[in-house]
Amino acid sequence: MLFGLSHAGIRHKKVLLSLAVLSLWAIPAAAVAGDEVAFLTQDNANILWTLLAAILVMFMQAGFGCVEAGFTRAKSAGNIMMKNFLDFAAGSIIFFLFGFALMFGSDMGGFIGTSGFSLAGVADGDLPWTYTFWFFQSVFAATAATIVSGGMAERTKFSNYVLVSLIVTGFIYPVSGHWAWGSLWLGDDGAGWLEALGFCDFAGSSVVHSLGGWLALAGAMVLGPRVGKYTEDGKAKAIPGHNIPLAGLGVFILWFGWFGFNPGSTTTADNTIGLIAMNTSLSAAAGTVAAMTFSRLRYGKSDISMTMNGALAGLVGITAPCATVTPGSSIIIGLVAGVLVVLSIEFIDKVLKIDDPVGASSVHGVCGAWGTIACGLFNVGDGLFMGGGASLLGVQLLGAGAFLAWGFGGGYVMFSVLKALFGLRVSKEEELKGLDIAEHGSESYNGFQLFTTE
Amino acid sequence: MLFGLSHAGIRHKKVLLSLAVLSLWAIPAAAVAGDEVAFLTQDNANILWTLLAAILVMFMQAGFGCVEAGFTRAKSAGNIMMKNFLDFAAGSIIFFLFGFALMFGSDMGGFIGTSGFSLAGVADGDLPWTYTFWFFQSVFAATAATIVSGGMAERTKFSNYVLVSLIVTGFIYPVSGHWAWGSLWLGDDGAGWLEALGFCDFAGSSVVHSLGGWLALAGAMVLGPRVGKYTEDGKAKAIPGHNIPLAGLGVFILWFGWFGFNPGSTTTADNTIGLIAMNTSLSAAAGTVAAMTFSRLRYGKSDISMTMNGALAGLVGITAPCATVTPGSSIIIGLVAGVLVVLSIEFIDKVLKIDDPVGASSVHGVCGAWGTIACGLFNVGDGLFMGGGASLLGVQLLGAGAFLAWGFGGGYVMFSVLKALFGLRVSKEEELKGLDIAEHGSESYNGFQLFTTE
Amino acid sequence: MLFGLSHAGIRHKKVLLSLAVLSLWAIPAAAVAGDEVAFLTQDNANILWTLLAAILVMFMQAGFGCVEAGFTRAKSAGNIMMKNFLDFAAGSIIFFLFGFALMFGSDMGGFIGTSGFSLAGVADGDLPWTYTFWFFQSVFAATAATIVSGGMAERTKFSNYVLVSLIVTGFIYPVSGHWAWGSLWLGDDGAGWLEALGFCDFAGSSVVHSLGGWLALAGAMVLGPRVGKYTEDGKAKAIPGHNIPLAGLGVFILWFGWFGFNPGSTTTADNTIGLIAMNTSLSAAAGTVAAMTFSRLRYGKSDISMTMNGALAGLVGITAPCATVTPGSSIIIGLVAGVLVVLSIEFIDKVLKIDDPVGASSVHGVCGAWGTIACGLFNVGDGLFMGGGASLLGVQLLGAGAFLAWGFGGGYVMFSVLKALFGLRVSKEEELKGLDIAEHGSESYNGFQLFTTE
Repeated sequence: MLFGLSHAGIRHKKVLLSLAVLSLWAIPAAAVAGDEVAFLTQDNANILWTLLAAILVMFMQAGFGCVEAGFTRAKSAGNIMMKNFLDFAAGSIIFFLFGFALMFGSDMGGFIGTSGFSLAGVADGDLPWTYTFWFFQSVFAATAATIVSGGMAERTKFSNYVLVSLIVTGFIYPVSGHWAWGSLWLGDDGAGWLEALGFCDFAGSSVVHSLGGWLALAGAMVLGPRVGKYTEDGKAKAIPGHNIPLAGLGVFILWFGWFGFNPGSTTTADNTIGLIAMNTSLSAAAGTVAAMTFSRLRYGKSDISMTMNGALAGLVGITAPCATVTPGSSIIIGLVAGVLVVLSIEFIDKVLKIDDPVGASSVHGVCGAWGTIACGLFNVGDGLFMGGGASLLGVQLLGAGAFLAWGFGGGYVMFSVLKALFGLRVSKEEELKGLDIAEHGSESYNGFQLFTTE
Repeated sequence: MLFGLSHAGIRHKKVLLSLAVLSLWAIPAAAVAGDEVAFLTQDNANILWTLLAAILVMFMQAGFGCVEAGFTRAKSAGNIMMKNFLDFAAGSIIFFLFGFALMFGSDMGGFIGTSGFSLAGVADGDLPWTYTFWFFQSVFAATAATIVSGGMAERTKFSNYVLVSLIVTGFIYPVSGHWAWGSLWLGDDGAGWLEALGFCDFAGSSVVHSLGGWLALAGAMVLGPRVGKYTEDGKAKAIPGHNIPLAGLGVFILWFGWFGFNPGSTTTADNTIGLIAMNTSLSAAAGTVAAMTFSRLRYGKSDISMTMNGALAGLVGITAPCATVTPGSSIIIGLVAGVLVVLSIEFIDKVLKIDDPVGASSVHGVCGAWGTIACGLFNVGDGLFMGGGASLLGVQLLGAGAFLAWGFGGGYVMFSVLKALFGLRVSKEEELKGLDIAEHGSESYNGFQLFTTE
Repeated sequence: MLFGLSHAGIRHKKVLLSLAVLSLWAIPAAAVAGDEVAFLTQDNANILWTLLAAILVMFMQAGFGCVEAGFTRAKSAGNIMMKNFLDFAAGSIIFFLFGFALMFGSDMGGFIGTSGFSLAGVADGDLPWTYTFWFFQSVFAATAATIVSGGMAERTKFSNYVLVSLIVTGFIYPVSGHWAWGSLWLGDDGAGWLEALGFCDFAGSSVVHSLGGWLALAGAMVLGPRVGKYTEDGKAKAIPGHNIPLAGLGVFILWFGWFGFNPGSTTTADNTIGLIAMNTSLSAAAGTVAAMTFSRLRYGKSDISMTMNGALAGLVGITAPCATVTPGSSIIIGLVAGVLVVLSIEFIDKVLKIDDPVGASSVHGVCGAWGTIACGLFNVGDGLFMGGGASLLGVQLLGAGAFLAWGFGGGYVMFSVLKALFGLRVSKEEELKGLDIAEHGSESYNGFQLFTTE
């Protein structure tokens, strides 16, 4: 024993003692000799796991920034990063002051929370968990807000986007979040109306993704398309992204962070997190493969941006059902999501003629709704999510509809009012110049020769 | 006590109570008063640690994508990202259906596993661990496959690369993986022939890296060099990478993920993970310093891509011995790897005249073999890895040879058959255009002015 | 129970059993039936948490590389990556051989440690923790060194930068580190003079950031400005960064890694880490918002690089006080840091006329000092950090001054001596060509058309 290590071959099961014995064996001799041996409490383990998961989810902000910047043009890349910083930064503060209380505070009629503003009034004993839970929820809130920026890329006035971001994180997101997750914080102060019905949205296909996606759709619609996106006779023109490796890195970052998003939603260090991770991985894989294959069948070549969106579609789709379906079902859920996202992007682009530059409404809105419904279709949970007498599928459909109505409807009202009051959009000249110069007075790629015609 | 926190100065040992006391002190008063205090079980701790490590390893996919794209040309960057997505996505599904069972199922003759396809037949009590272990192993499998794509960059037909990826993850990797790690899953159903001899490959210098590297070498050889790589009289020309910061970021991501790869290979939350991390860090550091210095001595200037490959060489080299050598030995292992990778890249490029665009065969193949041998040379483990009467070094040499034979030989057969059946390579016109346009109909850097002559 | 999972609805508190019960319930039946159930020891939990935090901090190296490269010009981007690799690689080895012992070894007069070179002489029982603690501290040391490279970007001779890096990590950093953290390792061998006074620098606003920032300032001053930075009549010209999305990604990576940096500085898996993460997040958010708003008020537009530096400023500012202030105070600390960094960057650039290309001295030096002072202003800790009879604020001011004197003074001496002996700077021709070509013989963006005039 050269290192004071207890063993070197733990992976070789033929020499592996039972863990009960190992545990004692791993304790420093001194401890065994006289001291009491201390163990990690489950409470502190939950704090540890939830914090680590939150950190992973926080990093998804980087992923969104890279995906959105990569899939749009070089002349607005810095502005997109700025919106992502804003969403997380202003969002964290507003969620501390208001959002968290509206989402998780004492329930009022199943519709909204009413206590815990700035975490005021929390009992001392509840504070360590509350800090951790707040942080975990704050990065979820920021995710929802960031999704919106994708649909509104390359033409939104920065000063007004600030308002959008604050309203989403401070009000729209927490209100509908309360419907589905209102009792998750301390739990004894009443549930939201959807969770009271037994609505299943384990990690937020609806709460986070659909909401963000439907808001993005409303925003893109109220803003109108980018200059040059549609010809005079209404034909959609592709405006390709300027940095595909950056977007690809962004997708990998999101995929990575999603292993905090889904397994972390246990907020408990227990033995279910392996299944959740496996389901998350398989659905993302299936979404990737489906979009890669389906785009090849449809366009003759495997499309890069569709494939990347397929990965995200699989991730969004498994977010609600990840804890309550089998690995086999996860593959099916991902395959459907990967096809759905291709069809939806086409439909929104070519039929609805709404210019959503990164496909946010398809990836997060449509596939979030799919995930919510899939949770009802493939459920093998032990009944905890089932509402009283109603079928789970019915509740899931109701919930998906409620998020569509609130996200798209509420978003439409918000964007229309902001447009009427301040004007949401930059001028045509500013848009042609690019938002980096127009809104921030600087370029993103100094020294590089860029084509000036687009 | 304003926050309900138990302490604020834990790092100041002069005021630090013993942990045994602290642990009680940190328990909420309510719990102490009446409830039983719950502790985290070692089983769930192992699940937690193994899952977190797997998540870190998963992120290495992003690192490989960035390194491979950065070290090759702009016109194929999106294609490289696509291959990385494919390797992980298709790989995860095929590893679920077949690979895992072939690698870890009930042993047949020491050569292959035969049970656990789609995880069928696993006892309920084993499922939580199995899900976690599967996920951990699936990201290892994807790593091996992704290494191959580097050696085959910029000229391989995408549709045929799909087959390569499926065969590697579904058959080649799990078979040789079984030889060395076959008993790791549940352990009571027989070992692979190499592990039965006492072969040491703690985290996969051979199982993952050498195998991937030797496959890359075979692939690069069967494919032939890129257009313009060698002059008519056989002189090698450098084809420099298009995005060095992206490659550098990729190396850092890989380095980061390696702290899941190596320490996570305990699959146990125990007290050995600190040493493994320290050894990993020191060897990577030494590899970097060695390549930086050696390339300066050899070429007059510290070469950037050699230095980055030196970091990876150090990481690959320490992967097998990380748990059973001293920190001092880790530095030596890394130094050797950093020199070796420079010499090997030169040798393969200039003497063998095989065009491996990112040096995958040198980094992973050669330095993986070095790490496997180093495990025998520097071993200070407590004998767990020693085979019956044979010397460990002998077993390590045998194992390194076996992986070379299986990886290069098996790969050569596979690539030759695929070439004969379908043609592995794109046409010369497609290659000159770049795989992004040729295979996916889009460019990676829209709006940027690129030189069209290369 | 289809999966062998113990539950599927853990997040739904209305069905949540008490954790004490859950814990038993989550134990595999077999374990309950006959075996002893093993639990994770607090010692091993501390190793697990500290290791995971160290891994996150290690990744900050990637963040620094991206920020520094992104904020400077394309022609030196590879050189910047090389310096970051060097700082971590050479730094790890020198910190193993010397730095760790000088920082944490047996105290001599409160000024320097004197034992533990290469970890020699550590008792077997202390080794597992020591390996982990060493790794955690090694990534902190590398962070300090990397900060310096930012201020010296685009004009420093690589061969001499190697010496700078070695001296900083092997001597300057550990010496002042000993003053504040000298007793943290095993604790019973005497404290540094600042910690003996009750100095509070929980995670290193002074120890890591101020020191790095003041060294960067001295380096930038001794080197002199880049060619073309100041007009003949002394007016500062902006030299904009070449890759803003890369810089933005780098800031997000740093932000992500900071959740290892600050909460990990407990080096204990306890219940305080949630508050520390929350404070870290809120201060970073406030710094971002402050810089975004303040730059808009000052320049008419929200400046992108100022906003990104504002995020880092908030992070640096909260690093000392993160464990001993309230969330509300964290917002104030971040807001001040976000304004301060804008004013400081202007002051150093336009008034002092020191060319710090990435604002390292403002972000890390000035905001590190601010964080150190803020720790005294907003302290609500339970007195553990208070020195004997002196006020905490006084001790904090003294400490901030000591780091300024040591970092700037010591740095000035070091840089001046190196300059006199070897010449710190590349030639004007080399600088105009860019350090990638001049120092490493390669370009970072092959195939891209770059403007040749800058």
